[in-house]
Amino acid sequence: MPHIQITMLKGRTIEQKRKIAERITDAMVEDAKTAKEGVIITILEVEREDYAHGGVLMADKK
Amino acid sequence: MPHIQITMLKGRTIEQKRKIAERITDAMVEDAKTAKEGVIITILEVEREDYAHGGVLMADKK
Amino acid sequence: MPHIQITMLKGRTIEQKRKIAERITDAMVEDAKTAKEGVIITILEVEREDYAHGGVLMADKK
Amino acid sequence: MPHIQITMLKGRTIEQKRKIAERITDAMVEDAKTAKEGVIITILEVEREDYAHGGVLMADKK
Amino acid sequence: MPHIQITMLKGRTIEQKRKIAERITDAMVEDAKTAKEGVIITILEVEREDYAHGGVLMADKK
Amino acid sequence: MPHIQITMLKGRTIEQKRKIAERITDAMVEDAKTAKEGVIITILEVEREDYAHGGVLMADKK
Repeated sequence: MPHIQITMLKGRTIEQKRKIAERITDAMVEDAKTAKEGVIITILEVEREDYAHGGVLMADKK
Repeated sequence: MPHIQITMLKGRTIEQKRKIAERITDAMVEDAKTAKEGVIITILEVEREDYAHGGVLMADKK
Repeated sequence: MPHIQITMLKGRTIEQKRKIAERITDAMVEDAKTAKEGVIITILEVEREDYAHGGVLMADKK
Repeated sequence: MPHIQITMLKGRTIEQKRKIAERITDAMVEDAKTAKEGVIITILEVEREDYAHGGVLMADKK
Repeated sequence: MPHIQITMLKGRTIEQKRKIAERITDAMVEDAKTAKEGVIITILEVEREDYAHGGVLMADKK
Repeated sequence: MPHIQITMLKGRTIEQKRKIAERITDAMVEDAKTAKEGVIITILEVEREDYAHGGVLMADKK
């Protein structure tokens, strides 16, 4: 009955999100032995100015 | 002094959010015995393609 | 189908948690019009040295 | 460069966590097209009294 | 290798976010002794109707 | 009135946490122009088997 919260940069298509949801759910069911119906995934999409790595905003990279 | 993070589908009115905030705060004050001023609630609203249950995006349900 | 994450100081009894879970779920069902079975609540309990308010750890208060 | 936070009941072995981390990372790399080195996964393990579904603590189920 | 999730009201400029990311990263490197490249910061911006304090939405304050 | 959630490996001293809380709060006050009393920081400490980077658990590194 896990909850998975994904925080990532905006821009993935619904088809990409569909596959991610399927594969993460399968991993939780097969490896964590949880019931499929209990897996909840939420995706928090953020802008490039709302994600920093090593002290630098993604908006400022390159 | 609890922090409550609610992740839910977009679409509730401000009146609904107002009631949810009041009732959750009351529950924390009366049952968790916390100071009212210390209760912080944040609502993260997500699209139907950003919420999956049982491996299926809400956008694909029905 | 909301997910509610509660972060609070360690120390509540199971009876307190039971009431909090019931009341928050009722609020989500009655005010956010979500299905009862879809409400997931997780409680993250933290030590007094892992919670700060106004720049001061709870462990250092008073 | 996604961050994935998994909240689940305590009790999985390190071997199970290893597989979950690998599979979720692979899904993010192959389907979200992110760099492998950018995938961060954190697992928050909670007790059965800290996880509720449908208003009932897991500790009170069955 | 910490992950820092900031939830705050919408409205800061990219310049403000840049400084916040730099300063929080510096604090984690200097005080938590973590590698700079390992610090990930995500900012979740919320509307005034999605943030409550003391049971009152920010949108309803004053 | 921001909430900052830090997820990091277990092992920092209370003195380190004290400094982190002070510095992050100062950054939020000075750069995000928020009231000091409104800054809430929570630290979620995880084991090395509960943190993965690039698909590998920290417990398996080196």
